Amino acid sequence: MAEKATIADVARYANVSRQTVSNVLNSPEVVKEETRQRVLAAVEALGYRVNAAARQMRTGRSRLLATRIETTQDGINVYDRFLHGLTESAARSGYRVLLYTAIDDRSEIATIDQLLGEFEPDGFVLTGTHHGDARTSWLARRGLPFVTFGRPWGAAEAGHPWVDVDGAAGTEAATRHLLAGGHRRIGFVGWETGSGVGDDRRSGWSRALAAEGLDTGLALETDGTTAQGRVAAQELVRRGATALVCVSDAVALGALQVTPAVVGFDDTPVAAAIGLTSLGQPLAEAAARCVELLTDQLSGRIGDRPTEAPASSPLLLSPTLVIRKDPRP
Amino acid sequence: MAEKATIADVARYANVSRQTVSNVLNSPEVVKEETRQRVLAAVEALGYRVNAAARQMRTGRSRLLATRIETTQDGINVYDRFLHGLTESAARSGYRVLLYTAIDDRSEIATIDQLLGEFEPDGFVLTGTHHGDARTSWLARRGLPFVTFGRPWGAAEAGHPWVDVDGAAGTEAATRHLLAGGHRRIGFVGWETGSGVGDDRRSGWSRALAAEGLDTGLALETDGTTAQGRVAAQELVRRGATALVCVSDAVALGALQVTPAVVGFDDTPVAAAIGLTSLGQPLAEAAARCVELLTDQLSGRIGDRPTEAPASSPLLLSPTLVIRKDPRP
Repeated sequence: MAEKATIADVARYANVSRQTVSNVLNSPEVVKEETRQRVLAAVEALGYRVNAAARQMRTGRSRLLATRIETTQDGINVYDRFLHGLTESAARSGYRVLLYTAIDDRSEIATIDQLLGEFEPDGFVLTGTHHGDARTSWLARRGLPFVTFGRPWGAAEAGHPWVDVDGAAGTEAATRHLLAGGHRRIGFVGWETGSGVGDDRRSGWSRALAAEGLDTGLALETDGTTAQGRVAAQELVRRGATALVCVSDAVALGALQVTPAVVGFDDTPVAAAIGLTSLGQPLAEAAARCVELLTDQLSGRIGDRPTEAPASSPLLLSPTLVIRKDPRP
Repeated sequence: MAEKATIADVARYANVSRQTVSNVLNSPEVVKEETRQRVLAAVEALGYRVNAAARQMRTGRSRLLATRIETTQDGINVYDRFLHGLTESAARSGYRVLLYTAIDDRSEIATIDQLLGEFEPDGFVLTGTHHGDARTSWLARRGLPFVTFGRPWGAAEAGHPWVDVDGAAGTEAATRHLLAGGHRRIGFVGWETGSGVGDDRRSGWSRALAAEGLDTGLALETDGTTAQGRVAAQELVRRGATALVCVSDAVALGALQVTPAVVGFDDTPVAAAIGLTSLGQPLAEAAARCVELLTDQLSGRIGDRPTEAPASSPLLLSPTLVIRKDPRP
């Protein structure tokens, strides 16, 4: 392999100063056309690879998409699995993924602001949308391109593109699965009311039962831990539930210690390991759609100014019920 | 919040051309000192944020550390958990993490080569080192700063900095734990011979048994799946093993279907969920040490040239035995 050509090599070859080479790359309008052509010919002849800095100054594009990775924690995070797909899909579109961490909306906004100054990412992929999400309104006000994996959950500025998984359709399918197994009193072990994702998952369970004229009162909230999942399951079984739909695999793990007819959510490796029926999210597809919606916005931009607000193109993907045991009582 | 100042605003304020502002940022040596001072004063007055491209051209630093994320797959990946710590530690040192995917050494080298041209990462964090690792020799030959999470496993050019977890110390502790529980015939369910990590984990088990003058022949290889873990466990129990040390939690999950006295490796969420005793890797610490070793190299560099080869500073961290059940037969 030949040594990497430097800007000095190009200058020598074209018989111009380094500054002229830099001008050709960064401010071509200040360079005479003939000189510009000679420098570009030298760039080609030497296989000089224009570096990111030079290209970015020329095109106003960094080819970076920024996204958050959760701070270190125990357990399994679906966003980790989403990140694999995001990195792969971004690469196929000529983008790389830049990571940052943040502990809440406020710190995430501060970090995004800092990244804009430091790396000028072309776009942002936000995860974990929630009611009153300050991040999306902040980005929208500045006309910065972004997409969210997660619905706007009632935000006023909901015109941004998003991709989400239809949790309600998932728990509805789970509930029907238990109904088909002969259960009539089916409980729901959820998160605290007010979580967009949690309320959505609960609504599918409730819808399936209501359609059959069955009791939709067998629901309890938890903090999402396996321990509270178990406690809630005990109470629901005491009230007559013979099967339980759960808002997560973590909670389902606790419920399983009480009764065998349980369906979890997220199809984590734990579910596969212990034979728990669960709802799997199409994370690789969600990531691919996010990149698509974001690059669609970016290709509509000239330089670093948005042309106009992109149309909202929400995408609600369906989870898959992964059945691992007979639902019969 | 004020509108973001542009390079045009700075030019107007300092009463110079945009080209001059660009020169001050990129080629200060071609600008008169008085003009340079006036432009810098304008930059300060307007709070103009020098962008990454301009800074990179000035300093030769991208403030990016690149690392691979595995392609999408099922199961739990310890490197996902490592990545959280890496992103946090990098941020504390003023670096961001740039992700890429690759399916083997050859494609990873090609991707690294491409990244060097596109983004000029300041350094690389490699994971999954193995015998005959082509990546480390490629990077070392070019004098590029990198650190590996994983030992060089006998590579000739082992002079690079690395961080690893002492797998042998872990399985030795696991074996002693089972010995203390009264077991005398303890088997090992491993991976195929030739895997650096797998052979290391096997050696700790063997060492603990040899120290007690016990049989070190009860070992079988598997492909790492739960199914083969179960088959191997059945055979080892048939040969008289009453307890099993396993090379991974995935394999241990299969072994648990055969006998209760099992220790896994990696302390995955699955281990926590099913009460499996397992060895936990200090992943956040490993990530922090990797960033430290890499930034130590970078701070010894001027511009984009290495001063001299950094001293090897390997770090072998100890895993922790997370006991979840009584080891007695």
